[in-house]
Amino acid sequence: MPQTPHVERHFTSGEAVRDVVIGMSDGLTVPFALAAGLSGAIQQSHVVVTAGFAEIAAGAIAMGLGGYLAARSDAEHYASERRREQAEVVEKRDLEKAEVSELLQGYGVSAAESAPVVEALAQRPEAWVDFMMRFELGLERPDPRRARASALTIGGAYVAGGMIPLAPYLAIGSTHSALAVSIAVTLLALLVFGWAKGRATGSRPLRSALQTAVIGGLAAAAAFGLARLIT
Amino acid sequence: MPQTPHVERHFTSGEAVRDVVIGMSDGLTVPFALAAGLSGAIQQSHVVVTAGFAEIAAGAIAMGLGGYLAARSDAEHYASERRREQAEVVEKRDLEKAEVSELLQGYGVSAAESAPVVEALAQRPEAWVDFMMRFELGLERPDPRRARASALTIGGAYVAGGMIPLAPYLAIGSTHSALAVSIAVTLLALLVFGWAKGRATGSRPLRSALQTAVIGGLAAAAAFGLARLIT
Repeated sequence: MPQTPHVERHFTSGEAVRDVVIGMSDGLTVPFALAAGLSGAIQQSHVVVTAGFAEIAAGAIAMGLGGYLAARSDAEHYASERRREQAEVVEKRDLEKAEVSELLQGYGVSAAESAPVVEALAQRPEAWVDFMMRFELGLERPDPRRARASALTIGGAYVAGGMIPLAPYLAIGSTHSALAVSIAVTLLALLVFGWAKGRATGSRPLRSALQTAVIGGLAAAAAFGLARLIT
Repeated sequence: MPQTPHVERHFTSGEAVRDVVIGMSDGLTVPFALAAGLSGAIQQSHVVVTAGFAEIAAGAIAMGLGGYLAARSDAEHYASERRREQAEVVEKRDLEKAEVSELLQGYGVSAAESAPVVEALAQRPEAWVDFMMRFELGLERPDPRRARASALTIGGAYVAGGMIPLAPYLAIGSTHSALAVSIAVTLLALLVFGWAKGRATGSRPLRSALQTAVIGGLAAAAAFGLARLIT
């Protein structure tokens, strides 16, 4: 990407920010909803706390390892597609040249106008492969250290998010009172998180805050209703 | 993308497949781990069932609505970046032309060689904007109906996945026996799902099957250990 100044204004959220958002969205919502749901059916705080911690452990590991494998599999997908393109620019040279021309014709550039570009790429096989990876397949070269960082960030954010709704049940013996405090604390946290998420991803912060709080509230209400229904 | 036959061999997993994978990965893993964890601490099957259903409801809604908002926010991001590019190709015409040239220079194409392409794009502002969206920013035009379909697919896959580990607790009164059946059934389901996921995403099916089962097993073991520890 060219480093001309006005390009910098285009926003692309960093991958770490994205991972925090992924982990914390679910971490704030699911343990909150589970604890609220169980409070509707079970009187003992310690059951809610046990279930909550079990959920946080399960969710953090499942999401963290899931993120690890997703990043690894992106990297492998990129590498295997790149090997295929590398073979094709050698073995199917003319077909690949025609593809570059067709790609550009899709943007209204005639075959004659694109001919110098096609020939220039054909002189530099590695650059040509990079061009096809990005422009034909829409794939970006993944960062090799991404998988581990992604796993730790997602898992850590899930745990951090999950502790917020659970903390009141640790401090307060009655599930009824703990639920009220947990709802207040978690809705506040969802609003703050949603607002920050909106700021970080370039969407309207206030709307993002409300949407995030509504999702958490709906999930908790559904879990609460269902748990009531089946006990 | 050109429709020449050999391009078809490049695999890109469909968005619906991706959504099923997202929902079912967590749906099979987290309710399984939660139920296993609670079985280590609590003797009554009905508590495990209540917590399991509460988790499935909470997880399906949180992930489904999360997927809805993610797809919506992708679409809005695309639209806002496109408006910015539309303004730029008019207001900063020369800068944008230089950018196309620099983009291609990044692939070893000289300014002289790319000049006809730059001029051709400059004649067609809409195609030029499309070109910049894909080639400068790496963004693809999102499907407007994607948000709702994505939400329903992710949520439905989560519920379907979550019912598998929970079913034994519904049928069997003792958590101890139900846990053994749930582990067997769920590990089998994780292997089958991991294998199918590997097939669908073009990675090695056997390795994918084992990885998926190991993640589920680790998450369940951690939840079980933690629940034991705090009761």
